[in-house]
Amino acid sequence: MSIETLLVAFDLAGTFVFALSGATAGVRHKLDLFGVLVLSIAAANSGGILRDLLIGAIPPTAVSDWRYIAVSLLAGVVVFLWYPTVNRLRSPVMVFDAAGLALFAVAGVNKALAYHLGPGTAILLGVLTGIGGGMMRDILLAHVPSVLWAELYAVAAFAGATVVALGHLLNLPSAPVTLVAVLLCFGLRYGGIRRGWRLPTAHFDLDDEAHDGENAIYRPH
Amino acid sequence: MSIETLLVAFDLAGTFVFALSGATAGVRHKLDLFGVLVLSIAAANSGGILRDLLIGAIPPTAVSDWRYIAVSLLAGVVVFLWYPTVNRLRSPVMVFDAAGLALFAVAGVNKALAYHLGPGTAILLGVLTGIGGGMMRDILLAHVPSVLWAELYAVAAFAGATVVALGHLLNLPSAPVTLVAVLLCFGLRYGGIRRGWRLPTAHFDLDDEAHDGENAIYRPH
Amino acid sequence: MSIETLLVAFDLAGTFVFALSGATAGVRHKLDLFGVLVLSIAAANSGGILRDLLIGAIPPTAVSDWRYIAVSLLAGVVVFLWYPTVNRLRSPVMVFDAAGLALFAVAGVNKALAYHLGPGTAILLGVLTGIGGGMMRDILLAHVPSVLWAELYAVAAFAGATVVALGHLLNLPSAPVTLVAVLLCFGLRYGGIRRGWRLPTAHFDLDDEAHDGENAIYRPH
Repeated sequence: MSIETLLVAFDLAGTFVFALSGATAGVRHKLDLFGVLVLSIAAANSGGILRDLLIGAIPPTAVSDWRYIAVSLLAGVVVFLWYPTVNRLRSPVMVFDAAGLALFAVAGVNKALAYHLGPGTAILLGVLTGIGGGMMRDILLAHVPSVLWAELYAVAAFAGATVVALGHLLNLPSAPVTLVAVLLCFGLRYGGIRRGWRLPTAHFDLDDEAHDGENAIYRPH
Repeated sequence: MSIETLLVAFDLAGTFVFALSGATAGVRHKLDLFGVLVLSIAAANSGGILRDLLIGAIPPTAVSDWRYIAVSLLAGVVVFLWYPTVNRLRSPVMVFDAAGLALFAVAGVNKALAYHLGPGTAILLGVLTGIGGGMMRDILLAHVPSVLWAELYAVAAFAGATVVALGHLLNLPSAPVTLVAVLLCFGLRYGGIRRGWRLPTAHFDLDDEAHDGENAIYRPH
Repeated sequence: MSIETLLVAFDLAGTFVFALSGATAGVRHKLDLFGVLVLSIAAANSGGILRDLLIGAIPPTAVSDWRYIAVSLLAGVVVFLWYPTVNRLRSPVMVFDAAGLALFAVAGVNKALAYHLGPGTAILLGVLTGIGGGMMRDILLAHVPSVLWAELYAVAAFAGATVVALGHLLNLPSAPVTLVAVLLCFGLRYGGIRRGWRLPTAHFDLDDEAHDGENAIYRPH
């Protein structure tokens, strides 16, 4: 099995577990079968589609390669039929989710570098690839995206993507660099969930401003 | 009148009725004139713009052909000025809405096939063209998009798009295929509204998980 | 300093103040550092990225030119560390926000004209450049975008963009036209905030329809 084949296999595995997360969210919101499938597709493919639009890889892989949609639909049907079982497997699924984040972030930065974008841009696109699907899933459900507040989600993607970009800059061999990047991202995210690692929030007394919106740039609705 | 002209006329008619739905939603949310117009444009054109971005038809038709925006604005102004009348015409408007969905889905799959995408991808883009505008309208209003839960909305688009793609695969003459596809999509959606046809939802006991978010991949906010 | 340099400097200044608005919204929603930075980037760059995708300027400037992201991150960190101070500077920041809107709208229409789009399309893309960032910021926070209901936000962008497009049509010298456009947009928006100028809303009695959703095209969730 070539490295190319392995990467595609990992990419499709990431697509599958992200689709599981989308479908799970859909079942919890009591959507019908089609709604669940739309969320599966959106959660699994939005990050890659956004990246491809931004780098000019048109049509995006998720559109031109039928396997991405097929895998997303499969995950959606599995969750729709066997939600309680999938839910009981939560802990392994969580492992896959962190693995999917790691693989998507690393794949995203690699694709951006292959399109001759600079390392900073490539890191950003790697992060976007990793977090984009979860953002779209939550936007469709009218939630604040969990990547904005969950434990080390995007930071883990950023760390993994940065390792790949640095390895590229220093001309290091790509196989070990990729391995380190995937493990770092996976470890940060998984540790974040398991141990509740969090980034700091800004602790200011916000109460006295709550109703003082007249002159504010941003006014909560 | 050539078939080409007829298709554009139908496309603009679909744009108009989707813009009506956007503007109606805006008036109900007590938006000002501009907010209503933004919703008109978004509801009528987001699906086609997304499709065009994904297949590389840049700039998208809605951007390069002024008539799409003009028709959207016209619908917005009509609703803003005569909302009660439009609302009383609800039933005919519903007919147009289902017709718009049918025409957009069929036009979307045809355009994707013309860009040499495979039949599966073309179906998906047809569905996206049909449902994209309503999704954007609802996201802008911070709702869960109605296509995720409403009666046979996306399923109808899927059925119509599939007929077109099958006809293309089998080299059937396009005029009757298009007619069948439009009528099927229209019939499913209209029947869905009139008779309350729905897809199944997954019925699981979700209550005991509601506050058990610690280890969940997806946590409602 | 050439006009080109000046325009880029103004563009980056606009990016900075829009990023401030995104970061401020993030701190108020008690997001962690990364969430605040994501909102900074989204608020400052979504409008320009959308415009560039629609006109085929790929990769978008915000992706290919590292300064846009750097300036966005800087603004995010500043707000995260010194939110109370930034908040106290609210009034000057409001001035910059209106200035950013003006500069983004004018820059957006100019870029669209440079890509040989028609004046109507260019105006639309100018408005989108100006309002896109704030829309994305609010969507990510699950709010109805303030541009849909705030005082003269998008109208101001429309007025400024229209002046530029008219000047282009009439072959007027671009420097004074740009100045007039920026001042007009700035003045409308700033006056809108200061004096509460608003567009009319449609005043209809909506109550008796609130639960009459069976046949409605649009049903609130």
